[in-house]
Amino acid sequence: MSDIQEITEALIRFRDERDWEQFHNPKDLAIGISIEAGELLENFLWKSPEEADKEKVKEELADVLAYSFLLAEKYNFDVKKILLDKIKKNGEKYPIEKAKGNAKKYTDL
Amino acid sequence: MSDIQEITEALIRFRDERDWEQFHNPKDLAIGISIEAGELLENFLWKSPEEADKEKVKEELADVLAYSFLLAEKYNFDVKKILLDKIKKNGEKYPIEKAKGNAKKYTDL
Amino acid sequence: MSDIQEITEALIRFRDERDWEQFHNPKDLAIGISIEAGELLENFLWKSPEEADKEKVKEELADVLAYSFLLAEKYNFDVKKILLDKIKKNGEKYPIEKAKGNAKKYTDL
Amino acid sequence: MSDIQEITEALIRFRDERDWEQFHNPKDLAIGISIEAGELLENFLWKSPEEADKEKVKEELADVLAYSFLLAEKYNFDVKKILLDKIKKNGEKYPIEKAKGNAKKYTDL
Repeated sequence: MSDIQEITEALIRFRDERDWEQFHNPKDLAIGISIEAGELLENFLWKSPEEADKEKVKEELADVLAYSFLLAEKYNFDVKKILLDKIKKNGEKYPIEKAKGNAKKYTDL
Repeated sequence: MSDIQEITEALIRFRDERDWEQFHNPKDLAIGISIEAGELLENFLWKSPEEADKEKVKEELADVLAYSFLLAEKYNFDVKKILLDKIKKNGEKYPIEKAKGNAKKYTDL
Repeated sequence: MSDIQEITEALIRFRDERDWEQFHNPKDLAIGISIEAGELLENFLWKSPEEADKEKVKEELADVLAYSFLLAEKYNFDVKKILLDKIKKNGEKYPIEKAKGNAKKYTDL
Repeated sequence: MSDIQEITEALIRFRDERDWEQFHNPKDLAIGISIEAGELLENFLWKSPEEADKEKVKEELADVLAYSFLLAEKYNFDVKKILLDKIKKNGEKYPIEKAKGNAKKYTDL
């Protein structure tokens, strides 16, 4: 079993032991990801990039990932496949020769 | 090599081919996660949970995950470990007998 | 008529001409605020604080404010009153002698 | 003095009494808006639109607005003007005859 499957199964078990699937529709899972992304970001507010508390970052990042894996599972997405497909697609939007050393959005390249 | 390592290596390769590590400090990666979480959420705006376009959800979720894996790598977090640790910790905040069938926040249980 | 009333009436007129009140429930308006906040934030990604494009910031900030005023109207909140009340409440969470020159969260003061 | 000016002056006074202007660069203010938008949204998570706690919504919405007014002040934006300009611009993106009764994004109209 892959590590992503193992994580996903642990998340599903946690959810089902609490009978929470009834709440986990895709829209609220996407809302959950946004909320947790905000909590993650709070660790960096008014700070230089290096000043965040690593332990708190760890916990909030885990929450973002947890809802992300649950949303992927909801749609039966293969996490590895959708990531590798996206990297390929982004390679077309950001060709190396144009994007190298340059943080512009592809629409401004 | 695990799935998560394989994805992370593909992301690092993509980043390094474009010489983008200079932009990828933890604060901007966390900002990136929030922005992508907002783009993901946009697919559900004004809609019932089932009406989102699955292909668009797939792409935006991949972006959330990509920045999340890059941020984990920045801190040398083991993604599987931080997820399983967080599930354990949440198990203490949300004991089954109290949380079952109930979507309240742990502070209101 | 106050500025805020004038803005709110223009927003309501815009909404009603398009028959959009049916979509504007409080949950989706709050989702809209988060999405627009993400679009605003995108102008600062990978950049130093001074490098954002002022015209784009202006437009995205206007969108955040537009949904915020519409959500206030939905609940019949008096925007001026809720702001002045919040400032007062924050004054208690952040007493001057403790908070001066210090960006810590009140829970860490 | 307009109500927006009055609110902005109260926010500036609060900030300056605590010597916080040093932290309030535009990028961190935009981050602050996103974080508060997430906290606002949390009141709606796993709920139907009507179930949010009105008092909590009020406080979080006030926080979103507070940072939004502070960011506007940072750039010397006239809040009323940028809102009325944006409504006009949106009127062109969403002509009444096409947009009426329809929640599609302008790119899909």
